[in-house]
Amino acid sequence: MRRRSLIAGGGVGLVGAALAAPAIAQSQPEVKWRLASSFPKSLDTLYGAAEYMAKRVADATDNKFQIRVFAGGEIVPAFQVLDAVQNNTVELGHSASYYFVGKDPTFAFDCTIPFGMNARQQNAWMTHGGGMELMRAFFKDYNIYNIPMGNTAAQMGGWWRKEIKTVDDLKGVKFRIGGLGGAVLGKLGVVAQQIPGGDIYPALEKGTIDAAEWVGPYDDEKLGFYKVAKFYYYPGWWEGQTQASTYVNLGQWGQLPKTYQAILEGACVHQYIDIALRMIITARYRPKEGRVPHASGTKGAFARAQNFKRVLGIHALNIA
Amino acid sequence: MRRRSLIAGGGVGLVGAALAAPAIAQSQPEVKWRLASSFPKSLDTLYGAAEYMAKRVADATDNKFQIRVFAGGEIVPAFQVLDAVQNNTVELGHSASYYFVGKDPTFAFDCTIPFGMNARQQNAWMTHGGGMELMRAFFKDYNIYNIPMGNTAAQMGGWWRKEIKTVDDLKGVKFRIGGLGGAVLGKLGVVAQQIPGGDIYPALEKGTIDAAEWVGPYDDEKLGFYKVAKFYYYPGWWEGQTQASTYVNLGQWGQLPKTYQAILEGACVHQYIDIALRMIITARYRPKEGRVPHASGTKGAFARAQNFKRVLGIHALNIA
Repeated sequence: MRRRSLIAGGGVGLVGAALAAPAIAQSQPEVKWRLASSFPKSLDTLYGAAEYMAKRVADATDNKFQIRVFAGGEIVPAFQVLDAVQNNTVELGHSASYYFVGKDPTFAFDCTIPFGMNARQQNAWMTHGGGMELMRAFFKDYNIYNIPMGNTAAQMGGWWRKEIKTVDDLKGVKFRIGGLGGAVLGKLGVVAQQIPGGDIYPALEKGTIDAAEWVGPYDDEKLGFYKVAKFYYYPGWWEGQTQASTYVNLGQWGQLPKTYQAILEGACVHQYIDIALRMIITARYRPKEGRVPHASGTKGAFARAQNFKRVLGIHALNIA
Repeated sequence: MRRRSLIAGGGVGLVGAALAAPAIAQSQPEVKWRLASSFPKSLDTLYGAAEYMAKRVADATDNKFQIRVFAGGEIVPAFQVLDAVQNNTVELGHSASYYFVGKDPTFAFDCTIPFGMNARQQNAWMTHGGGMELMRAFFKDYNIYNIPMGNTAAQMGGWWRKEIKTVDDLKGVKFRIGGLGGAVLGKLGVVAQQIPGGDIYPALEKGTIDAAEWVGPYDDEKLGFYKVAKFYYYPGWWEGQTQASTYVNLGQWGQLPKTYQAILEGACVHQYIDIALRMIITARYRPKEGRVPHASGTKGAFARAQNFKRVLGIHALNIA
């Protein structure tokens, strides 16, 4: 009775809302889309972002706009997500745009630049500094409408089998690294490798690669790197922030009702902020011992962690 | 023709979406709500947030869910927004919860705590650290469903007519300050005053108060403080971050269709991130000289800025 009296007492707004609600369901257009992610299912951060986003879209449309999410490799290989959206094989993709710097280095600006901005700066640049307009114009040539969805914030320098004491130790090291950072390290003799997140562990375990960086403690522990590489370095100066993006096929976007466009875009922004927060709360506050990321292996590696910048940073800055 | 061929070529999803779209408009329930803000209309950040949020809600519902925004003092005084929502005078409010620490100091946790978390930590705590659950349970007693909407990030220490060289200089200074920070400074002899944003300038100009903190350069310049107070101090250690919140009358929230609940909540989160970014891009990058915040008065005050922490921080830390 309390609710009813509140409504009656207020006398403002919400005219017949509760009664009219079921009618929405009958008339909203049914839209079923597929999203190809570049990320492995084990990561509730990067892969999970797309599923959380899909749920928010469903909630806002009474389940009429449904997005089904597929992990890297399920529909298309992790690094073919861009092509798949461009060609309308899927309506949606979720990826890190620096995977595609081989097509055009401009993709890095939608993701991360070594020694570049931090997460807040990137986000501010995209939202209020003209970045979005520039990236939208660029993606148009790929038949894509891009919406930022996720930022890992500053990343770690990765897991190394052998300790790095001098710059010479880097020579010939096969290092899994994303984006333009590999080109920087290449000047120091590192053999940069681009490998999808889900394929890094076996490569590191078998010795196909000697070292690998992914994101940070929360994700890295899930992928198990601490089991096969003892040295965990920081910071990942090549990823002071890393932005992930949702790709929407431009033709499909144009045909979507404007309300669904607004809901989809809003859900992506909602998820943008969620990824980094999920990593922060778990990596930095460790609410429960053992839950994150201080499993014994990781803990030991942390204790041995060296300041990557001290060994590498200055040299790398000078090679530009 | 390009679009059409894409759709035809893809053959996936979006069945009849474009044709069915107009039908949504006819069946969505019409909801008209009012939002009372605690902030003055001149601020596109804090006041503007509610208007941007309202636009997003309208866009996602084909204008069927309309929210009309009123500045502090228009419907109810700036500091009575909480009561107005609690009593269903308005369905929505937008405020900084530390304005209400007089009712209960717990309100500060929904906003800011001196020497407390930074923006990312507060946001992570709310979203993934259990903060939201605690605050929702607390607000329930006020008949309110709270949704965070906005964070200023770290604030400045405010504008002072007289230079502060020693802690003794603080004695008797009438200082406009929000929340619990005033209680800290009170121990040092400051006479803390709580004044709504829109009323600070005249109070400072007339000499009713001797100093005032609001947020940071972007907002502070709009409110004109640099014209009447020469010394701008930093940092505002009492506001390492400051979260703003949307208040929804709990009875109205319960009657809202679930789709509208999801859309409203999503729009608030969208706007949460926008406020701080708007401040960052303008305050830190200064895309156009003279536009922000380096008007001559501000520039001069910046040049004279002292490190507030050096004078005050340690003492304040020791008085707890």
